[in-house]
Amino acid sequence: VSDFNTLSSQVALAHRPADIARQATLTYFRDPSQQVSAKQGEMLGSAHFDPVTEADRGAEAKIRHVIETECPEFGLIGEELGALRPQADLRWIVDPIDGTRSYICGLPTWTTLVGLASENESILGVVDQPFTGERWLGSKNGAYWMRRYEPSNANDLQKIQCRPCASIEEACIATTDPRPGALFSVEQARGFDDLARRARVIRFSTDAYGYVLVASGNLDLVIESGLHLYDIAAIIPLIEAAGGLITDWQGCTIKMNGDWNGTVVAAGDVRIHREALDAIATW
Amino acid sequence: VSDFNTLSSQVALAHRPADIARQATLTYFRDPSQQVSAKQGEMLGSAHFDPVTEADRGAEAKIRHVIETECPEFGLIGEELGALRPQADLRWIVDPIDGTRSYICGLPTWTTLVGLASENESILGVVDQPFTGERWLGSKNGAYWMRRYEPSNANDLQKIQCRPCASIEEACIATTDPRPGALFSVEQARGFDDLARRARVIRFSTDAYGYVLVASGNLDLVIESGLHLYDIAAIIPLIEAAGGLITDWQGCTIKMNGDWNGTVVAAGDVRIHREALDAIATW
Repeated sequence: VSDFNTLSSQVALAHRPADIARQATLTYFRDPSQQVSAKQGEMLGSAHFDPVTEADRGAEAKIRHVIETECPEFGLIGEELGALRPQADLRWIVDPIDGTRSYICGLPTWTTLVGLASENESILGVVDQPFTGERWLGSKNGAYWMRRYEPSNANDLQKIQCRPCASIEEACIATTDPRPGALFSVEQARGFDDLARRARVIRFSTDAYGYVLVASGNLDLVIESGLHLYDIAAIIPLIEAAGGLITDWQGCTIKMNGDWNGTVVAAGDVRIHREALDAIATW
Repeated sequence: VSDFNTLSSQVALAHRPADIARQATLTYFRDPSQQVSAKQGEMLGSAHFDPVTEADRGAEAKIRHVIETECPEFGLIGEELGALRPQADLRWIVDPIDGTRSYICGLPTWTTLVGLASENESILGVVDQPFTGERWLGSKNGAYWMRRYEPSNANDLQKIQCRPCASIEEACIATTDPRPGALFSVEQARGFDDLARRARVIRFSTDAYGYVLVASGNLDLVIESGLHLYDIAAIIPLIEAAGGLITDWQGCTIKMNGDWNGTVVAAGDVRIHREALDAIATW
């Protein structure tokens, strides 16, 4: 059972939860019958049927089964079904559907996130987008992208890296929801808006897809708040392996022990990471 | 030359500009060397090299060549290279890359838009997303989606339709940029924000991809302003064939003669279209 002490064996294992989640997430994605069911449920006043939660729970149950079968000494922390062995040294931290709002709306930018924490550090991340077929992989061995992942071609990796960016005026930036009172407070939203208006390009509603685009050198900066460990555990090793920086709003490492306030600044270049922290300090 | 008077022959022809654009748009999408070139150009103070404009112009030049070769009696109105025979009864109205900001940032939600106008009406629309492989087709013969379009399987169509939605509280809605002073005025942005906060889900940065998700029954409402004919010509026949409504903010048909103020309300259900118009009247 315990031959998973090397990074390469852990990488091989990390693909499995993402592989198994694909089936459940793609089954419900854009399924109009599920949408109709949700509406009928509401109109009848019965319990609210939520296709996203169904897909989320279905995928997470499959992931739990894989872990119990293939590596029962690992812990598991998921969004939907609670924790298994949360005190284990090695813990999978998974979000079967990150970007549930995009998933509900049919947008192809939701992802499945599989992170591996060792003690307080996230050491391995897999990000999967089953509809486009893309998969990202980050660890101290590098940051990689697969255009059309299949279990049979898991070694067909393309190395990715962050790009240089000297200042916010040159930057392409993203955040999921810029509205005051959503993920940012009123003051934070105003501060973010001031920063965003100086940038070259801004995109919203990006969820974890924004972070992988920092790792692949397409975006320069993501600033967010209100996140959970399962939103970020898979992202940290990917951004760092691609040469970027990812911290909380105070510039501190995001630890996997829960001692974190849910804020994130991810940047491809230290100069723009610094500029973002300086701006945030005034919000 | 002039055997393009039937809708079926026009549909066959409408795929060609989208087919030919794919090569140019995919070549530059996520190309890091182009990104570096752009930055170097700026640092040297030389003319600004814009990879999106390169891709846009390259695709539009290919489209012009196809039209001149295959249907030289049609007009062509494009974003980048101006008009050919703008007075022709049948005019292609094309946007090689709708959603240039998403294209720049590596997001897979930009599209190629090909509309066909007859007199003042848009009668046929093709929407293409080369990275996901999706293509949408709308005309009075119906609204269709292809999961993985190739010229060889252009008849492998899946019928799509808008879904019912009784009120804004049940709605999934979208707009490209909600910020005051971007596409909306300060007053319009405030009004939109009030409406959006009542909705079930809201997504931003959707561009034309938001409209196709209305046609496919995944989104219920898109409200935008500041659009051009080439942003909407391909969309109108798709939304209408899928059973939805698409008008300007006064509830009037969007005419292809330029007599339009750039506002759009697209809804899958007449009830929510009405509710949106009533709200907009107060902005």
